[in-house]
Amino acid sequence: MTAEILAVGTEILLGNIVNQNAAFLSCELAQLGVAVYTHTAVGDNHERLAAAFERAFERADIVITTGGLGPTSDDITKAVAAAYFGLETEIHEESLQRIKNRFQGQALPENTERNALVPKTAKIFTNDNGCAPGICIEKNGKILLMFPGPPHEMQPMFLNHAASFLREKTGRAFASRTLKIIGLGETAVESQLMDLIETQTNPTIAPYAKVVEVHVRITASAPDESAAFGLIAPVADEIYKRLSPRIYGENEASLAEIVLAGLREQNYTLAVAESCTGGLVAAELVAVSGCSDVLREGLVTYSNESKIARLNVCEDLLRQHGAVSEQVAAAMAKNAAITSGASVGLSTTGIAGPEGGTPDKPVGLVYIGLYVRGQEPKVEKYNFTGGRNVVRKRAAVIALDFLRRSLK
Amino acid sequence: MTAEILAVGTEILLGNIVNQNAAFLSCELAQLGVAVYTHTAVGDNHERLAAAFERAFERADIVITTGGLGPTSDDITKAVAAAYFGLETEIHEESLQRIKNRFQGQALPENTERNALVPKTAKIFTNDNGCAPGICIEKNGKILLMFPGPPHEMQPMFLNHAASFLREKTGRAFASRTLKIIGLGETAVESQLMDLIETQTNPTIAPYAKVVEVHVRITASAPDESAAFGLIAPVADEIYKRLSPRIYGENEASLAEIVLAGLREQNYTLAVAESCTGGLVAAELVAVSGCSDVLREGLVTYSNESKIARLNVCEDLLRQHGAVSEQVAAAMAKNAAITSGASVGLSTTGIAGPEGGTPDKPVGLVYIGLYVRGQEPKVEKYNFTGGRNVVRKRAAVIALDFLRRSLK
Repeated sequence: MTAEILAVGTEILLGNIVNQNAAFLSCELAQLGVAVYTHTAVGDNHERLAAAFERAFERADIVITTGGLGPTSDDITKAVAAAYFGLETEIHEESLQRIKNRFQGQALPENTERNALVPKTAKIFTNDNGCAPGICIEKNGKILLMFPGPPHEMQPMFLNHAASFLREKTGRAFASRTLKIIGLGETAVESQLMDLIETQTNPTIAPYAKVVEVHVRITASAPDESAAFGLIAPVADEIYKRLSPRIYGENEASLAEIVLAGLREQNYTLAVAESCTGGLVAAELVAVSGCSDVLREGLVTYSNESKIARLNVCEDLLRQHGAVSEQVAAAMAKNAAITSGASVGLSTTGIAGPEGGTPDKPVGLVYIGLYVRGQEPKVEKYNFTGGRNVVRKRAAVIALDFLRRSLK
Repeated sequence: MTAEILAVGTEILLGNIVNQNAAFLSCELAQLGVAVYTHTAVGDNHERLAAAFERAFERADIVITTGGLGPTSDDITKAVAAAYFGLETEIHEESLQRIKNRFQGQALPENTERNALVPKTAKIFTNDNGCAPGICIEKNGKILLMFPGPPHEMQPMFLNHAASFLREKTGRAFASRTLKIIGLGETAVESQLMDLIETQTNPTIAPYAKVVEVHVRITASAPDESAAFGLIAPVADEIYKRLSPRIYGENEASLAEIVLAGLREQNYTLAVAESCTGGLVAAELVAVSGCSDVLREGLVTYSNESKIARLNVCEDLLRQHGAVSEQVAAAMAKNAAITSGASVGLSTTGIAGPEGGTPDKPVGLVYIGLYVRGQEPKVEKYNFTGGRNVVRKRAAVIALDFLRRSLK
């Protein structure tokens, strides 16, 4: 089965809101085995919306709209849909009662009852978080699902009321795993997996480039979910064989979560000393709830004075090699650990730009230092491309990944 | 003139990424006086993309694509566009050289040069943040603009290279100023400006809610840009009269830039001590190139041990009032300044959640401390709503704004 997602609302075309509903519905439909070939957004305009319905049903079995179900004059989705299917509208008494209950005896705002106006014979999805109900019209082999626009109304309505309806229609289950990779570009990943990508049809394999990472998504369909995961497993194993140790994790797990879990497993505590990343490494770690048993502290030693005073980095070392050097990165990592009493120290020092580059030390040069108690400090050197904040972001992520790789 | 925005990429239809490019481009096109009637997203499929081009050019003068310009086999936008316009493709030597320079003499990954393959006679927009250049084809009264998909490549390319091209095409000048507000919600801003919003047509006034801020955008059109700015000025003055001092700045200037400039003006240096924000305040400041003359250091004193050892926060104070308290926020700010030799100290301590809340100190409680040499420390108390990382982000921005307000 194929679906088209049609967002209705001039505010989307003006760029006032980002159409997050389309991404949510696409994810959910993929899970249900419904292929989505097109997203469309149109404004609150009868003629253009009617044309969009025509085109969408030429291409798809299911059309899903978001937005335009409210009571105001620019909420036109229901009227255009009723006209498309040749249906009259009527008040849905159950929805009207539910809306009245929401206002608990207060006077209803003007036109509120229009929320409960629905095409005759339509199936209704309850709105647990707002006024306008969802509506399903099934006629002549076509299915139209209409949802309210606010994500906090639409998403639970889809999950709690509409998904089971669609599941019955498709009779097939989809599953996917996403392998997350750092340290290889999209082209490098693709060329190492090309034979798999080209020969596999179920599961399919697709690489996606992020700012620093590449994600490889493996998707399979089968009569049920566990059979679909069964089809994915050997393909995932083969990709691990080729790309491990560049694969840091799967699905929703963040790099910071994985790094913290790795440290915790070895009873390590961590201190971070950042120069060019300026707090980004610490902020990634503190984004994870419960990081406090591992993260002792972070030091943004942006000035030389601070590197000397807080980290006991030797003034001679700074003078001789410069703050952006292998030697200073090593000293920062080691002394961050020692001065804070942590077992592991991680450091960054680099030239984020746009100023400050020299022929010897160009913009994008970053050293990442790592010290584990009882071992010699290790330093990795990178030449990142991109603007100041892309360089900083890359350096922060690669620093966490350096730590991850070293823990294994 | 009318435009259609066409996103290309199966990852969008799978819901792996949210199509933020459409919202960005819609905003920018509105500024340029170009009406957008449709957004569409299609997958990496020749036939469906070709059909989408046909339909888009039936409806619009300008079609703008995002995505599918890369070197891999599923990057098909350029090939489909060349076929649509009946153009051959060729290597754009300048772009190829730029790409080679990005790799600084390293071996180019396989197929990299395909980034520089462009339809003959096309106009090229330089990519300052990635490999694939932007491409403009103008033929038979139709204009096609193709941009890479990653927002950090597309947005600067649009603003720095493509906007001026479109501005010439529209023949009318649009100008806008965005007043940036912290500390008032969208509803409060709107109700204070409602009479202006409802009566103004040129300029128009539109408030936009961000995570922490509200932006009020004033847009005017006139025969030339300076006349458009002339129309905006008295309206902006009136808004300043009503909402100052909540307006922290205008347009592109970031809060961190404004704070750093304010500190610099008074020859102040700054140290930051962060608990719940965990490096976000420092990271905002380090995002500004040239911050090193003002920012001495940042300390992510996430643990009590670290607050004691690095900041000399009194153990008794921590025991008596808890780490999340007015007293500890004040001590952190003061001691951050004193121990680092800075003239100003800024601190955050709070309960970001989801764990750790109590009836007395619920999730979202954040204290922000500020110390200026020679003065008593000041503390502001907030109860933020939202998930862990929304609370952290809000606290970091409000901390910088507290400093800004105090500098005036």
